[in-house]
Amino acid sequence: MKTFKATRISIIAEKLNQAGITKILENAGATGFSFFEGGGKGEHSNHPVDRPTIIKDFAIIKIEAIITDRTVAEGIAEDVAAAYFGTQAGVIYLHEVEVLRPDKF
Amino acid sequence: MKTFKATRISIIAEKLNQAGITKILENAGATGFSFFEGGGKGEHSNHPVDRPTIIKDFAIIKIEAIITDRTVAEGIAEDVAAAYFGTQAGVIYLHEVEVLRPDKF
Amino acid sequence: MKTFKATRISIIAEKLNQAGITKILENAGATGFSFFEGGGKGEHSNHPVDRPTIIKDFAIIKIEAIITDRTVAEGIAEDVAAAYFGTQAGVIYLHEVEVLRPDKF
Repeated sequence: MKTFKATRISIIAEKLNQAGITKILENAGATGFSFFEGGGKGEHSNHPVDRPTIIKDFAIIKIEAIITDRTVAEGIAEDVAAAYFGTQAGVIYLHEVEVLRPDKF
Repeated sequence: MKTFKATRISIIAEKLNQAGITKILENAGATGFSFFEGGGKGEHSNHPVDRPTIIKDFAIIKIEAIITDRTVAEGIAEDVAAAYFGTQAGVIYLHEVEVLRPDKF
Repeated sequence: MKTFKATRISIIAEKLNQAGITKILENAGATGFSFFEGGGKGEHSNHPVDRPTIIKDFAIIKIEAIITDRTVAEGIAEDVAAAYFGTQAGVIYLHEVEVLRPDKF
């Protein structure tokens, strides 16, 4: 079977940031993405100069996209981290996957 | 820790195709799988000869399975793509994972 | 872009085991995790000495964490498998990912 390498980007964030993160993906030219609602626990600091950080439960959203151009995936990761993850809980991870055809989601 | 290599197959599709995709997995001998409901945006063309394609929001389902035999995973990917992803939105990706024991989900 | 290697651990289990699995993660020092509800089908045997095993539909939970220390991820996998997956359906898989910064979810 012929497959193509692509990068999967997964963004786990507080649900209230979903629209803004989606906008970053669209601006970067992602042709498709998917999202799933869930729960989570993570570090959160409203006042980053104050320690310790607070561990809270959150309503989260996981946003995923398969991006054929690794540079585009990295750009999305950097933009989302800069916009939302300075003081708020969240994580972004990347890994390589194989796809059958160019992404349509 | 002793681990075994396996292939994770992830299929993101329009929710209305869930039963058909599940049937392909079962026919291929997958002993287990899981699915998650979500939303997504992707390319969709009711009339593939007409350009441009339409970008729409969808109710989606993500179906995952861990398959120990890579050839079986590839066969599932090909069958699902042939049956559903000619003109409909969706994506299939494969990647290697490590498992502790033979898959039971 | 500078990235750091980390291990993603994914645990797919029957929903009734969510609290216990979460406790194992917290005891291992995971600073964050996320979970998603879904459905699934898998092998289940109330009486492992009796064959064949029973294939059933389950309400499942997928619990994910990004762990920077691979040894910690392996310890969680072993503890969860020992506690819950002797006779119950479930699967744990590990794979390497790249993250932008230490995990906060």
